[in-house]
Amino acid sequence: MKQLHIDAERLWQSLMDLARIGATPKGGVRRITLTEEDRQGRDQFVRWAKDAGLEVRTDAVGNIFARRAGADPSAAPVVMGSHLDSQPSGGKFDGAYGVMAGLEVMRTLNEHGVRTRVPLEVVSWTNEEGSRFVPVMMGSGVFAGIFRKEDVWEAKDSDGITVHSALSTIGYLGSKGESHPLGGYFEAHIEQGPVLEDTKTTIGVVQGALGQRWFDVAFAGQDAHAGPTPMELRKDALIAASRLVLEVNRIATTFPDYARGTVGHMQVKPNSRNVVPGEVRMTVDLRNVRDATLTRMKQDLEKTVRAIATQCRVSAEIKEVVYFPPCEFARDLVSLVRDSSKKLDLSHRDIVSGAAHDAVYLARVAPTAMIFVPCEGGISHNEIENARPEDLAAGCDVLLHAVLARAGA
Amino acid sequence: MKQLHIDAERLWQSLMDLARIGATPKGGVRRITLTEEDRQGRDQFVRWAKDAGLEVRTDAVGNIFARRAGADPSAAPVVMGSHLDSQPSGGKFDGAYGVMAGLEVMRTLNEHGVRTRVPLEVVSWTNEEGSRFVPVMMGSGVFAGIFRKEDVWEAKDSDGITVHSALSTIGYLGSKGESHPLGGYFEAHIEQGPVLEDTKTTIGVVQGALGQRWFDVAFAGQDAHAGPTPMELRKDALIAASRLVLEVNRIATTFPDYARGTVGHMQVKPNSRNVVPGEVRMTVDLRNVRDATLTRMKQDLEKTVRAIATQCRVSAEIKEVVYFPPCEFARDLVSLVRDSSKKLDLSHRDIVSGAAHDAVYLARVAPTAMIFVPCEGGISHNEIENARPEDLAAGCDVLLHAVLARAGA
Repeated sequence: MKQLHIDAERLWQSLMDLARIGATPKGGVRRITLTEEDRQGRDQFVRWAKDAGLEVRTDAVGNIFARRAGADPSAAPVVMGSHLDSQPSGGKFDGAYGVMAGLEVMRTLNEHGVRTRVPLEVVSWTNEEGSRFVPVMMGSGVFAGIFRKEDVWEAKDSDGITVHSALSTIGYLGSKGESHPLGGYFEAHIEQGPVLEDTKTTIGVVQGALGQRWFDVAFAGQDAHAGPTPMELRKDALIAASRLVLEVNRIATTFPDYARGTVGHMQVKPNSRNVVPGEVRMTVDLRNVRDATLTRMKQDLEKTVRAIATQCRVSAEIKEVVYFPPCEFARDLVSLVRDSSKKLDLSHRDIVSGAAHDAVYLARVAPTAMIFVPCEGGISHNEIENARPEDLAAGCDVLLHAVLARAGA
Repeated sequence: MKQLHIDAERLWQSLMDLARIGATPKGGVRRITLTEEDRQGRDQFVRWAKDAGLEVRTDAVGNIFARRAGADPSAAPVVMGSHLDSQPSGGKFDGAYGVMAGLEVMRTLNEHGVRTRVPLEVVSWTNEEGSRFVPVMMGSGVFAGIFRKEDVWEAKDSDGITVHSALSTIGYLGSKGESHPLGGYFEAHIEQGPVLEDTKTTIGVVQGALGQRWFDVAFAGQDAHAGPTPMELRKDALIAASRLVLEVNRIATTFPDYARGTVGHMQVKPNSRNVVPGEVRMTVDLRNVRDATLTRMKQDLEKTVRAIATQCRVSAEIKEVVYFPPCEFARDLVSLVRDSSKKLDLSHRDIVSGAAHDAVYLARVAPTAMIFVPCEGGISHNEIENARPEDLAAGCDVLLHAVLARAGA
């Protein structure tokens, strides 16, 4: 039997049509959640879904489900999706790809008259980005029972507008909450990192998402004139901070299990050319795919901060500000993604997601997997975000075959 | 013969009286150059000088000379002094001490009927601080031929007022430039650093002033998301910058001759918690008492910046923005300061000035030395600047005896 394939051109065309809604001058998209642009994007998706014969429903926080019936109407559906909202200066593919890929799978099945055993759904989750309302991953979080819909409704943007009011304004306030059992959840997404491009790989078989621990660190020494103060009498907070930057790098490069460590923010005081810095405030971001290893990284960091403070004769404070546990995807679904890549003769490799996605919350309530495709330079959350049509099509083909294997013929 | 001593109480009282002019709430002084407060400070000094029988003259850039005749009127005078202007939030002793100590020496000699062979002068140099007009050390710089008075006259403050106009307004625009030969120049000053206090020493026998080389350094890598970007694919500009901070410290602690190295300013971009920094701009301040060593430090720095850039896979730029050569004071005058300290049984140690002073310019045209006394915590350019009356008196005693030895009985 000839291999089933999605229509690469139709997928690309849908992505480009969708990207006209909220298009920015530099080729990006500004479709902030629950705005007029988001409404237009949702309307477009709903029209296409209905055109494909799907049954559309919206839940109480604006998540949109588009269903294709299966042979067994009582079976839990296999669901594909992602989000249609964007960063304020976002790209054409982040989120939109996962929804359009799900839609393209439906269209392909229609075209070839394929009927699955269990029903299929495409979902667009509300407010994944968190640019206007927090929490991020709001819609999938409510679906997974992480947040209560009543709390989420009260969240306000900077103008004081609530989620409830914004949902109502754009016409996507559904009547009831939704929390049905899932036979599986697959999310296709651009990698938003450089690994696939760097290794010339088409498909990332996503094992899970990194856990995160974020810290604020402050070192306090003593301001002093750079001229009259001999080296041995200084209490230079920037020397302590610089040592910590290198130690965070050591931690991230010596621990196993996809360890990452980043100092992204540093504020030096008084920050004057000829004054020895008396104070530095900085952040540390540690990530790992295993919770136990992440805990050991944290312990190493705290011990290191104390040791540096003693050696540099400065005081130190360290405070954990965010903890987000690692997420491991369902082995059988991950295997389906790998097997489909093999069957389609696509280059593929195991990978972990460094960022969070709706799939991370879904994994708490359903067997979940993700499919990554390369994006140019690993750049995302940026108007210049880009991906190649052939890679997007390949990822959608993998989605099709993984879903078919899961949903049964 | 009984040892001659200055009047410690009179010196302290003059400093306190002077500090009432431009006094700030926290016990400091705001007497910015060529303002009304500066005029009042100058007027006070001139009154006291005339009361002490000194002959006062003002030169074309407002430097004030107060002369006490010697037995040989044709001999080049021995000069003592410093400056009366302050930082915007300055202290009571920076500059003022050197002028008041010179005045106190005159009063003491009057009191004891001592006549020196060569004439003596106390000088107050215009605009040492550079807070309102650049260049800093303007008056001494003109006297030493570093700047032309015509150029200095045209310098403007932030309101567009010229030095010439400001001098004229406060009545201190003298008719002609002044550049007479000096038999020696002694400047007493608070240390503005922690060494004397830390070593419980009363007198710093200043050998000279550190040369300075200032640099701007920029590292450029690549912004990247902290989550999806593996350590080995990063081009983290902050890791390069942190390594340089530690290397600057290595340079300053391994080179001889009072080496100092400081990174005082650092700007991280985009400076976001979960983004690998793509760019860091920083400053480097290298100092040394020997020019040859300072050059070797600079060469080490430049080589180190290049090596770090290669190892961290980032690009680097380094640009020298200030070069100020080291200054070595006159050995015979420095010896007079040391010998006087010994004779007066005062604890003393050789020291170098990490900052520049009027004496640094004077050293180019006259045999010059400086006398340092401790200040509390090494803190200066600050309203809380403080010094002990007994230390100030000791420094003034050393000044008296060094000047007497130089000026001849």
